[in-house]
Formats: sequence, C-alpha cells, structure tokens
Amino acid sequence: MNNKDFRSDNVSPPAPEILDAALRDSRAWMDAYSDDQITGRVEERLAAIFECDVAAFPILTGTAANALALATISGRFGQILCHRSSHINMDECGAVEFYTQGNRLKPLEGEGAKLDVATCVRGFGTSDDIHQLRTTAVSISQATEFGTYYAVEQVAQLGSWTKSRGVGLHMDGTRFANVVAASGSDPAELTWRSGVDVLCLGATKGGAIGAEVVVFFDREKARDFKRLMKRSGHLASRLWFLASQLDAYFRDDLWTTAAHHANAMAKRLDEALRQNSSLTPHFPVQTNMVFLKLAGSAYEKLQASGVKFYVIDDEKEGPLARFVTSYATEPDDVDRLAETITGIARGSA
Amino acid sequence: MNNKDFRSDNVSPPAPEILDAALRDSRAWMDAYSDDQITGRVEERLAAIFECDVAAFPILTGTAANALALATISGRFGQILCHRSSHINMDECGAVEFYTQGNRLKPLEGEGAKLDVATCVRGFGTSDDIHQLRTTAVSISQATEFGTYYAVEQVAQLGSWTKSRGVGLHMDGTRFANVVAASGSDPAELTWRSGVDVLCLGATKGGAIGAEVVVFFDREKARDFKRLMKRSGHLASRLWFLASQLDAYFRDDLWTTAAHHANAMAKRLDEALRQNSSLTPHFPVQTNMVFLKLAGSAYEKLQASGVKFYVIDDEKEGPLARFVTSYATEPDDVDRLAETITGIARGSA
Amino acid sequence: MNNKDFRSDNVSPPAPEILDAALRDSRAWMDAYSDDQITGRVEERLAAIFECDVAAFPILTGTAANALALATISGRFGQILCHRSSHINMDECGAVEFYTQGNRLKPLEGEGAKLDVATCVRGFGTSDDIHQLRTTAVSISQATEFGTYYAVEQVAQLGSWTKSRGVGLHMDGTRFANVVAASGSDPAELTWRSGVDVLCLGATKGGAIGAEVVVFFDREKARDFKRLMKRSGHLASRLWFLASQLDAYFRDDLWTTAAHHANAMAKRLDEALRQNSSLTPHFPVQTNMVFLKLAGSAYEKLQASGVKFYVIDDEKEGPLARFVTSYATEPDDVDRLAETITGIARGSA
Amino acid sequence: MNNKDFRSDNVSPPAPEILDAALRDSRAWMDAYSDDQITGRVEERLAAIFECDVAAFPILTGTAANALALATISGRFGQILCHRSSHINMDECGAVEFYTQGNRLKPLEGEGAKLDVATCVRGFGTSDDIHQLRTTAVSISQATEFGTYYAVEQVAQLGSWTKSRGVGLHMDGTRFANVVAASGSDPAELTWRSGVDVLCLGATKGGAIGAEVVVFFDREKARDFKRLMKRSGHLASRLWFLASQLDAYFRDDLWTTAAHHANAMAKRLDEALRQNSSLTPHFPVQTNMVFLKLAGSAYEKLQASGVKFYVIDDEKEGPLARFVTSYATEPDDVDRLAETITGIARGSA
Repeated sequence: MNNKDFRSDNVSPPAPEILDAALRDSRAWMDAYSDDQITGRVEERLAAIFECDVAAFPILTGTAANALALATISGRFGQILCHRSSHINMDECGAVEFYTQGNRLKPLEGEGAKLDVATCVRGFGTSDDIHQLRTTAVSISQATEFGTYYAVEQVAQLGSWTKSRGVGLHMDGTRFANVVAASGSDPAELTWRSGVDVLCLGATKGGAIGAEVVVFFDREKARDFKRLMKRSGHLASRLWFLASQLDAYFRDDLWTTAAHHANAMAKRLDEALRQNSSLTPHFPVQTNMVFLKLAGSAYEKLQASGVKFYVIDDEKEGPLARFVTSYATEPDDVDRLAETITGIARGSA
Repeated sequence: MNNKDFRSDNVSPPAPEILDAALRDSRAWMDAYSDDQITGRVEERLAAIFECDVAAFPILTGTAANALALATISGRFGQILCHRSSHINMDECGAVEFYTQGNRLKPLEGEGAKLDVATCVRGFGTSDDIHQLRTTAVSISQATEFGTYYAVEQVAQLGSWTKSRGVGLHMDGTRFANVVAASGSDPAELTWRSGVDVLCLGATKGGAIGAEVVVFFDREKARDFKRLMKRSGHLASRLWFLASQLDAYFRDDLWTTAAHHANAMAKRLDEALRQNSSLTPHFPVQTNMVFLKLAGSAYEKLQASGVKFYVIDDEKEGPLARFVTSYATEPDDVDRLAETITGIARGSA
Repeated sequence: MNNKDFRSDNVSPPAPEILDAALRDSRAWMDAYSDDQITGRVEERLAAIFECDVAAFPILTGTAANALALATISGRFGQILCHRSSHINMDECGAVEFYTQGNRLKPLEGEGAKLDVATCVRGFGTSDDIHQLRTTAVSISQATEFGTYYAVEQVAQLGSWTKSRGVGLHMDGTRFANVVAASGSDPAELTWRSGVDVLCLGATKGGAIGAEVVVFFDREKARDFKRLMKRSGHLASRLWFLASQLDAYFRDDLWTTAAHHANAMAKRLDEALRQNSSLTPHFPVQTNMVFLKLAGSAYEKLQASGVKFYVIDDEKEGPLARFVTSYATEPDDVDRLAETITGIARGSA
Repeated sequence: MNNKDFRSDNVSPPAPEILDAALRDSRAWMDAYSDDQITGRVEERLAAIFECDVAAFPILTGTAANALALATISGRFGQILCHRSSHINMDECGAVEFYTQGNRLKPLEGEGAKLDVATCVRGFGTSDDIHQLRTTAVSISQATEFGTYYAVEQVAQLGSWTKSRGVGLHMDGTRFANVVAASGSDPAELTWRSGVDVLCLGATKGGAIGAEVVVFFDREKARDFKRLMKRSGHLASRLWFLASQLDAYFRDDLWTTAAHHANAMAKRLDEALRQNSSLTPHFPVQTNMVFLKLAGSAYEKLQASGVKFYVIDDEKEGPLARFVTSYATEPDDVDRLAETITGIARGSA
C-alpha cells in the first residue's frame, strides 16, 4: 500500500512488536492500579537507560504527562516559562492551567523553538513582588515542535540556571527517542545530569498504542504523583496494559531503532526535495519533521493531490506545511511525496 | 488453573473477543483524536441499544467518566447529592471536586446504598440562599457499591424529581451491564426514559482492557465534552483503540452475556454459602457481588488461606468481606471459594 | 430608640471607639498594601495578647479569613474535618472548596456543635490509600454556631491529636472575644498552647465596621499569605483602614469589654425567659446567642410582632429561633424581647 | 505640609466628603450582606449616570472587581485578550487565572497600552480547534496603565468586533473617572453604548477609603455575582460601608471633580517639565500619570532626594519613572516636584 499520511506520527498503526507484547501480557490475572509487576519492570528498564534510580509512571497521553508533571513540580502562584510554540502552550487546551489550578504559562521567543538562559532571565521577572506570579518552572520540548533539538550543552546551561534560581526543569519528551537517535547523546546527559527534574517520555509516536511515561529523577518529588493520577482518572485498573507497551518499547532498543528509522525518512525527504527542486526546509531537519514554506496556492494543490499533512499557522513564521515521518513510513512513500511536492512547487512558482 | 482472585472484576485478563477485535483494528492507519470511524460505530451501537440519538465518548477509566460527566452537568456553586458509600464519594480521591473545580458532594444515607426522593429532598437545601451552595445534580450508582440495583420505577421517581427541580441526574454505570442482565429491564427505561441525563457505562469490568463510555442523551449538553477530555489529557491520539474495545463489547450482546455469567457466579456463591453454612450475605445478591459479615478472626484466616478479596470498612456497616465475580470466574472457582469460606466460618463460629 | 434587631451581631452600627480611631487614622498619607505602620501595631498588640510572636493579617470578612487560612494549612488532596453545623460547612457558599481548589469538608456530628477526638478519629479515614483524600486539617469554631464554646482542655485534646497525626488545627474565632470574656481563659491557652495553628479572630461582630484578623502562631506557615490575599483581591491598597479598626478593637481591652456586655445581654435574656415562662434555651447559653425551640405557630407570630431574628433550620435539631446580642444591645431591648417572646409562647402553648 | 508622595493615587488620605458620608451612615442599624438601602441608592445613581438599568456591586478592591467580573463573563476553556502591560496581566498575582479557575490571559501589544481590532483578530486564534483554548473575552483598561485612554470611537470598534465574535468586553476602569473628566465623553458612550459588557469602576483612587463598583449593563449576566462575592469572602456583612463611600463619590459630581483636579495636576507637571527642562513625557499625558525616561543615575538621585515614585520596568520600554497625581495633590507639590526633577535631570545629563 502506498501510504500518504504525513500528518503526524500517531496516525500509523501501532508497532507489531508492541502489539504482540501487550497481547501476550493480556493472558494473566494481574494486580490493578499499577501494583503489577510489568510496571515495576518498566521502572527497571528506565533506571538502566538513565543510569540512576527513577520513579516512573505510565500514562495515556502526552498532554496528561506534561500537565501532571508540571502540576507536581510547579507550586501555587507559579509562572512557567516555555517557548511560544510549545505544545503545552499551543495544543493542549490549557491542560497545564487546569492541572496546576491556575498557574500561568509565560510564552517566550527563541530560535528553532528553543529557549536559552538569556531569554529565561528576561522572562523570570522578580519573585519578591507579591503583586506578581513567581516563576516556578521552565518547560522545554525535546525534540521541539519544529523538529529541532537541544544539544546536551544547551540543556545543561538551562539546568544550571534553573537550579541556581530554585526553579524546576521539565522536559516534554514526546519525541525524546528521536533526539537520542539523532544526537547519539546519552539519555542521562540529556536529562538529569543536565538538570532536568522530570521527563515526559513518549512512546505513542514511536509505535505504542497509547503510552507515555513520566520519569522523575528524584523519587521524593514523585511522592504524590499516583494520587494525582487517581484524582484525574488516569490511574486505570489495568494500567499494566500501558506498562506492557512501554516494556516492549524499551526492550532490545526498539525505541531508538524506531526513531532512527523515522529520522532517516525525514532526512531522505529533505535531501530529495533539495535535489529535485532546491526546496529548503524552513527549519533544519534534525529529527522526524520537515517544514516547508510554500507558495500561496501550493498548500491547497498539495492537499488536493491526496497527500495528508498539516498546515501550521505560526504567529511569527506564517503558514508552513509540516510532514512527519514515523517508524512505519517507507522509503517509497517518501520518494513519492518528494515527487508530488516538487511537481506542485514547480507549477506554483 | 484454579483462580482465587475475587478482589474486583478488573483483575482478570481482558476478554478474548475484545482483545481480538482491538488487535484486528490495530492494522490500519487511522485519524487521531476520536475522528476515526470506529468511534462513530460505537455511537451507532449505543443509539440502537438506547433507542435514541446519543453523544458517546470512549474514555479510559470510570473515575474520569464520572468526574467529567458531572463537571459537564453540574455548574458553579454546585452541590451534588450522592450516597455516602458511592464510588465518587469513597474511592475517587476527590476527582469530582477536582473536575468541577470545587463542587461539593453531599453524602446521604439510604438502604442498600440507594437514594430515594425523600432523602434527596432533605439534602437539597435551598437554592435561594447565596450563603449556601445550590444542589445542581444527583448521582446514583447502577449497580450500587453494595451490588444492589435501582428498579426502573425507582430511577423514574428520582428522574421525575430532578427534572422538577432543574437538577441533573447522573448514573455511575460501571456495572450497568450487570443491572441490565439481572433485571431484564430495557436500557432506555433504566436511563433516559426515567430521567437520566448522562450515563457512565463501564466495559472494563465486563472484560475490556480499559474502556468506559460516557453517554449523553442530549447531544447539546455534550457540546464541550471533547474539549474537557483534551484539557484533562484523556483525548488519546489513538482513542480508536478504546472505541474498538467498546465496539466489540456491544457487538452480539457480549456485554450482557458476560454480565449474565458474572451475576450467575455470584448467585452460585450465595446459594452455596446458604446451603453449606447458612451464611447470609449482608446485602441481597442482585448482581455480581457478595458481601459477608464474618466473625472477627475469619477475615484474616480467609486471607491466609490464599483467597483474594477486599475487606470494606464501611462507616455504618463495619467491616465486610467483598467477593466480586466476573465474566472470567469459573463455577469451580466459586465452589472452592464457598467451601473455603464455609470451613473458616465454622471454625470461627 | 427601642431596638428589636436580634438577627446577628453584625446589624448594629459599628462601635464609636472604632469609628473614631479609623477616622483619626484617615488623615495621613500612608504606605499601601499593608506596608503601613498601623498593621505593624496590630501585630504587636496580638503578640502581647497571645504572648508569642505572631504573623497577623487584617482581612475584610470571616469567610475570607477562614478560607484563606485553611487554604494555607491544608494541602492538595486534603480533607478537612469540621462539625456539620460549622459556618464553613453551612454558610460560606463553598469558600473553602474554592480557596483550597477542591479540598473536601467532612462534616461530623458532636454535641453542642463541638468536635471531640473520638469523632475525629472516625472521620480521619486512612492517609495511605491513594483512592481516598487524606485528612489534612481540623477546623473548630470558638464560639460554635450554637453559642457554646470549647474549654481549654477540650481544645488541647484536639490539638494534641492533630499534632500526633501531622494535621493542622484551624480555629474559626469570629466570636473568639465572647469566649475569652465568658470563660476567663487565657487567649494563649485557648489557642497555640493547646495546638491551634491558625486563628481567624473576628472584630466585626464585636463592633468593627468590617475587619477580621488571621493570626498564625508560626510565622513560617504564613509565608505566602499576603500573596494569597493579593491573588484573591483581599489586599486592599488602604488596608491600613482595616488595621486601624483592629488597633482600636484590641486597645484598652475594648474587645473583651464589648464581648462581656454582649454575653451579659444573652444571659439576661436567658434568665428573663426562664423566670417569666420557664422557656429553656435549646443549647446552654454560654456566649451571646440564645436558641429557642418554639411551638409551630410561634415563629410567625414573633416575626409578625416586629422582632427581628433568624429561624435556623438545622438538619438534626429542626427549626430554632436564634437571638444574638451584641455590644450595642441594651438591657431594655432584652427585657422587651423577653416579654414579647413570653407572651407569644404562652399564647401558642 | 509639603507632600512628595507620587507613587500612586492610593497613598493619600481618603477624601473628606467620603469619610464624612461613611461616618454619617455608620449610626444606623442596617441589613447585612448588601441588602441595605445605601447599596440600592448607589445602583440608582449609576443608572442615572449611565442612562440605563444596571446591576452594581460594591467591592473592596480593583483586583477583586476585575477578576470576579471576568470570571462572570468568560467561561470554561477561556482565553482573555489583554494588553501586555495591563494590570490584570502584570500586577494582580494571577487573580484572573484564580477566579476563572484556569482561563488564560493572552498578552498583546499595542501603542499607548491600548488594543485595537487588528491585534485582537490576530490574538483570537480559532474557536473550533478543541486542542486550543477559545477566546471568550477582551479586557481593556480605561485609563490604561500608561495614563492614556481609548476614545469612544476606539471602544466602539472593539465592542462591535467582540459582539460579532460572541465575546465579552470588560473594562478595567480603576481610573474611569479620570477618562470621563479628561475626554468629556459621556459615560454611556464610553461603555455599554460602545459594547462594554461590564465595567469595574474605581473609587479608591478617586478618594474612597477602599471601594470599587462592578457595573453590569445586562442584569441577567450578573445573576450569580453575589454568590461569587460570598464564595470568595467579598460579601462583607457591613457592605453598606462600601456603598456609603460610593454613594458620596457619585453625589454632586464629586467623582469627576476629583478626577479633573488630579488630571490638571498631571498636566501642570507635564508643562512645568517641558518649560524648565524640555523633558518630554514618555507617553502623552492624558489623565493623571506622567512617565519619564531618565538618564541611568537620575532614578536613584531622585529617590535619594526624598521624592516618592515608582520605577516601572517595562519589558519593552525599559525603566520609566512614574508620577501619579490625585485629588489630594496640591499645585505646590507639583511645582516642587518639577523643580527637583529638572535639577536632577540637568545634573545627570
């Protein structure tokens, strides 16, 4: 089958390895509400990957992961610094405001959808003035919503600054696997060794049916997390089914293998476009997303051609076509997409 | 295998029919965030079952279903009448208070864990005094936490009263299938024809991996429900996987067949206990739960014997052993359980 | 003038001493938002009265005082034990639920509207079960809504228990002055020496225009209180005007003098009723309130006679006529009231 | 006395006319919780001023007024458009987020701290995407935080647009009197006739001790407002004391007379500065505030000289000295201030 769906990395079928594992685990009687053994196994796998003790909580969605994690590390009267284009700011319908019960997101600018210390310093404000909210956390996306990523050094600079201000550092890692695969960096270096307090690590976009895991690098901070999950209806009785997917995802390097493939497909698209038509992606293609600024009519023509993709209407960048590749994208799909885009781009030029 | 786990109807493996269906649906590329066709199919099945147009939303847990449903029908300054022993009051860690952003549950008494109009009238208070919260909803459990159920007539009396007071009627139907199976009553009669505004219909305890469905009988009331799901992290990208389970659950009467079996197993336990030891259940066994008041030391002895069950420590009734049967409970399991209990009860007497 | 208004101790004009002081302070230019000197002076007066360092915050209403105090000492997932008849449960429109962002009040029974340790132990539940809220605070009213009060020993028993459970102890002291006047007990003994963490001390019912003060006996706990006031719109720019009223209230024992008079007027009513008509108050008259259970028609007759009072419709006690005396009640008012009641009670008998 | 306090228009003593009136009203026995006659009289005065039926609620602070008003007109999932520099965004410690229980403020740019329709259109986003919050209200400040004001025509353009989008229009009128005085515009034209739904009209900065009034031009929208006041502890028992201040404020044109004077003093300062030192205010002086951009060291020198003023550190404009005049500012105070500034500015140049 010739697949043309590049809207996101959550429209493909789940990965067979993950489905198989979940099915196998579905034969046993099991303790409910995450007291099962599989959840314990996931925590062990993550401890090995991150080379430290962790508290890990399987959860259904990235929005829940982010919002519950931030509700845990950011306190009352809190202001959370994030990039203007971040998912928590743009695409989660105010979940952070809801779960923090009224914290404020302070949207900041930054190239490639990334924050740096200077920007955070300006956004920080003062913590002494009782007429103002106080900055309690910084949230960064790894990879970012524009497909770029922070180098270890960049995370470490932010982490060092947040520590110095007594502020939490949250990482939205819905595509963390793509960063590990692309950068070759050590997961520990990318996170707690660089000052990250909590990582929301996604598996759904890497092929799980629906499973993310919230990873705390300080068990003490996670003390009330399960209660927060219960209170918000996220503590499923058969939560082991999510754990089972994660167990398979982190087994035998499936998570990075799948991400490598997705990244390679995006790179292939990038190169094919440059060769055929000298179309340059709007942002450097560092993970599994390609953004294109097209001529006005090209967006509709491309949609009419049957290709499925999203048009992101960014406040500053204007409309951009976004193409996302996944573990399930095949080289042929990419080549045909490149041809279609090239043809339309030429016609519209 | 000899299974001894009677703690709840969520410790068994998922039902094979449901697993198979979910697996089959997991091969296709699918629209994300509930825009898929399977979700639509579930809505159609429910419309057929309830003989009316419905808006239906698959959701991961009963706690989420209840809290989001109540947050939808109960407004600001709201007080929600419920039975003292109800799940929303006792076992959901304040989810209703959280999702309604500060509504109050008013716990009421009532035989067999059921409310009646007279009790609700007393609990209603006045809606005119701005120094007090105003009653905005009534929540009933069908079946109740004690395994009993409301007859159609009893629901209708409550529904008629709530309508007359302009108050919403919510039904926590985590074991709704067991009521339909036990009573033989028409699903429509048990709900909207009797004044129920929203039903949280459970499939998890009937064999789904983890899937409930919130059913609104007035589509207009559900207008913002998907946004509420998104905001709370319950709108999974592959939500079709939950829909798929529900699709199988409502196909070919699986839902009532499974419930019939679970109910029959509880009845079998009830009868065996009466015959062997003249032990009388603490509440009439109407669905799939058997409660026993045992002599003091019998609880520990029973636990020591390897039988898994919960001891419910009710404020008014004191400690009670609770045994829950499910679609996966086998007659042999029940017979062995009855023997074990009987032996211990005799020894402790 | 013959005054017949016994509805509450907030319908009289403010006390002249307080008005004069507030007026005098109103001539100067002053720092805004409680950074003025008068607020500091109030804190000093309270430190002297309570013989310890305190953090004190003038605030407009008792409802705000209670809710902000409880929001400060009770955390997330909190359950607050209180008497069923308490003001926070019955007359503050869910302010505690609002300010704590979803804590739950657990209404308990207790004679004379008072809690004891045994009742609290039963209401406490367990703090280990993540499916349930955890008890984080106990709230008691001093005087109670039925005009009774806790002896030092009774407060101390509760305080000792709350300390042992790591739970906060809040005192709603809207009529604290009446208790000090009636009991002759030491303010320190009645509060922090007996384990009270925060006292909401009322001046409004003692003759202030509108001023209460939240007194924390541990300055550290109050760290964020001013921010909470700001966030909720209670940090007035000319907050010194409230401080000024409190300054006068605590000067020269005005607070206890006024309370002594109010209490004496209630006692006078009690005695007159017993003499004239052998009418016995429904609760012991310990402070400035008299409750009477009248024959059915007597309530309306009394209202028709022009006497102003409230009929409290208590869930357990049924309808009760409540008469409240204040600093401004005159002996003649009381005598005439006693005559009127006696006449009607005889007629209705 | 030579007064040098130009920090804000809330550091002066209250106006004598207002103090006298409040004192006079403080002699009577009065119904509690705003059921008194004075509150009714205020509503009548406002109905006359605005030439329409209004629902009016006296309240202690501008922060409470704004947040409760916005919580009334903006619904769940709401996003509120406001200027970046607005008081609700910069100086109310997240009160709007708190009272709306998680709405989001969307800070926008605009010259002179004012919004226009084009900016609002860009900020509006889409209301159809459930992954995003939906814009439910626009909030404008009249006068703005930079002392400028919207002409009737500018309000009307915004009002016409908000009506067309089904969005509420809120006016933070803490210095509304200064606008009426400066513009000579009709209060009705400045508000409801131009599409304003709710006005928070300040009296505190015009000489009240502490009293603002929330004015709804559609009584139906205000249905639950008193309950919201109660729930947040703003419904004082002697709320008539606030009403009394408002009653005096709106009597005999005191409100506009006081504002005329304050505006004239700012104008006097503006002119003196231009004459003496060719210092040009950073924003046009339209009401009672003068902003100056000084040379680096001048801020400290000015503070050292004993003049009291605030340095506003605006994100875009940088540090600015702000001088606020009030009903109580005397010409001599202004002249001396101008001399001092001039001297220092010359020295620092």
